[in-house]
Amino acid sequence: MSTDIRSKFLQVYDTLKSELINDPAFEFDDDSRQWIEKMLDYNVPGGKLNRGLSVIDSYQLLKGGKLTDDEIFHASALGWCVEWLQAYFLVLDDIMDESHTRRGQPCWFRLPKVGMIAANDGIILRNHVPRILKKHFRGKPYYVDLVDLFNEVEFQTASGQMIDLITTLVGEKDLSKYSLSIHRRIVQYKTAYYSFYLPVACALLMFGEDLEKHVEVKNVLVEMGTYFQVQDDYLDCFGAPEVIGKIGTDIEDFKCSWLVVKALELANEEQKKVLHENYGKKDPSPVAKVKELYNTLNLQGVFEDYENTSYKKLITSIEGHPSKAVQAVLKSFLGKIYRRQK
Amino acid sequence: MSTDIRSKFLQVYDTLKSELINDPAFEFDDDSRQWIEKMLDYNVPGGKLNRGLSVIDSYQLLKGGKLTDDEIFHASALGWCVEWLQAYFLVLDDIMDESHTRRGQPCWFRLPKVGMIAANDGIILRNHVPRILKKHFRGKPYYVDLVDLFNEVEFQTASGQMIDLITTLVGEKDLSKYSLSIHRRIVQYKTAYYSFYLPVACALLMFGEDLEKHVEVKNVLVEMGTYFQVQDDYLDCFGAPEVIGKIGTDIEDFKCSWLVVKALELANEEQKKVLHENYGKKDPSPVAKVKELYNTLNLQGVFEDYENTSYKKLITSIEGHPSKAVQAVLKSFLGKIYRRQK
Repeated sequence: MSTDIRSKFLQVYDTLKSELINDPAFEFDDDSRQWIEKMLDYNVPGGKLNRGLSVIDSYQLLKGGKLTDDEIFHASALGWCVEWLQAYFLVLDDIMDESHTRRGQPCWFRLPKVGMIAANDGIILRNHVPRILKKHFRGKPYYVDLVDLFNEVEFQTASGQMIDLITTLVGEKDLSKYSLSIHRRIVQYKTAYYSFYLPVACALLMFGEDLEKHVEVKNVLVEMGTYFQVQDDYLDCFGAPEVIGKIGTDIEDFKCSWLVVKALELANEEQKKVLHENYGKKDPSPVAKVKELYNTLNLQGVFEDYENTSYKKLITSIEGHPSKAVQAVLKSFLGKIYRRQK
Repeated sequence: MSTDIRSKFLQVYDTLKSELINDPAFEFDDDSRQWIEKMLDYNVPGGKLNRGLSVIDSYQLLKGGKLTDDEIFHASALGWCVEWLQAYFLVLDDIMDESHTRRGQPCWFRLPKVGMIAANDGIILRNHVPRILKKHFRGKPYYVDLVDLFNEVEFQTASGQMIDLITTLVGEKDLSKYSLSIHRRIVQYKTAYYSFYLPVACALLMFGEDLEKHVEVKNVLVEMGTYFQVQDDYLDCFGAPEVIGKIGTDIEDFKCSWLVVKALELANEEQKKVLHENYGKKDPSPVAKVKELYNTLNLQGVFEDYENTSYKKLITSIEGHPSKAVQAVLKSFLGKIYRRQK
């Protein structure tokens, strides 16, 4: 991704923001305009922007040639819709998880003047997506499909969040509920659809493709998203904090991590007892016992096998795809995440 | 509204619920299916259902003749979409306002096993609207307009909620911010669009009408919704608790009520001081002082004048409409709320 594209992408953010704070569907005054502007700047553009940028990237690979200014603008607008959707999820997730920081700054709802207004701000962020789509895509032949796509992916993400929340329900800390199948379901619905499938699906629609003919692309991307999240779970425990930029707390937080699920699968009765007794405790000693068990069970080796197998499986699926352009899109995604250290 | 239609409407709820807990876009298991079913039954059908039923009512008046089973089903499904949208707003509003009860039972988030999962449940409720629309209206010529309509109205409602929240921002209790113009904006955006315009707009779309040709209908309904909310504000203070079913607390809660706005407008400097010193206090004595001032300023008489003027204005607007069927729809709405005591 060239710095040129990145700066053009950021310019589109300014355009969209300016349109949204002057949306004729609502009578803005100075207070509400300033509130929205501040809220957007705080929550939307601060991340790595990978999801948004990959819409342009994917469209570029599908087209093959140089993009027109109009194509860059529209692919960027769709990219920003993905980022807006993500911002909405994050603002509300932080409230639900009682998080403290996000992207190196206090969570939006932690700001003294914001508080629970953040819940409504999350809703506003979500509502901006159809506003952007309507303003810039209403006349396009793929408009309905685009709106349906965002709605379906949002529904899947919220459903994934639901099973995540139900599974870790406070007061019912029962490790025996965790399994590879529930881990896969949480990850697939909560993360893979919006992070991996949605950007490519946007690019495909813009390119005039019928999504119903690309179920295989969806399957590969969902598989890749699942692999990405397993890496995330692995790095939370075994990654270098100075590289990944945070100290993992999945063990303390009783998270349905791929590691604990694998450990439960591989452990004998005695080892299972160690897990049940120590998983989800805040103190350093039980956390160390869990990590020791992970080492005994050689989860690092198990992960390496998983990574190699996943990679091979993904490459085989990708190379089975009839279109070289689509193959390039999928390989580009895979290349960005394979064996990542952060 | 016949009891027959009401019972058919309730049957459609069961159908929609059953479809939603078997939605193929998500892999439900027993836990998640039970969670959604309980959440829906707790939050969706418990209200008066006026908004939902009025879609059928309006469609009936537009058509003039007897409705087919198919028409009843589709008008009911749209009515339920309005009710689902309202349930979503209420679940999230209750979290934001830290409310305790809703429709005679504890707020959903107050249930011990629910807590902050309620925020995600609110999102799920919202996501059900496009699921219902897609399942039952995807092939209809007005599908895109329907999706756009729900998106626009949701955006307006969230924006109204935003100015309501910003205006009453905790710690900045400054009565001088309240004015008739801000009261009108809050009420119009937060309540009138989804409660009054949306049900009729759904019926118009189903009847094959182009909403862009019905700006006057929208204006009348928004006006009616504003009048409805002024009544609400009035009844909060002057209504009989045994009739309206609750004891009003707008004065204690520092609400931007029509009454306080009118009082600020009519008060002399000394009376304004009384308002500034006593409005928004929890104790009975300051509340009594505010009510005394409302009486001194004859707000009951001022309200009666407002009610009469509004009614005449609305009737004139309605009778200016070229279609007798549309007139009937609008008069039916007005008849239901004019001089209501609860």
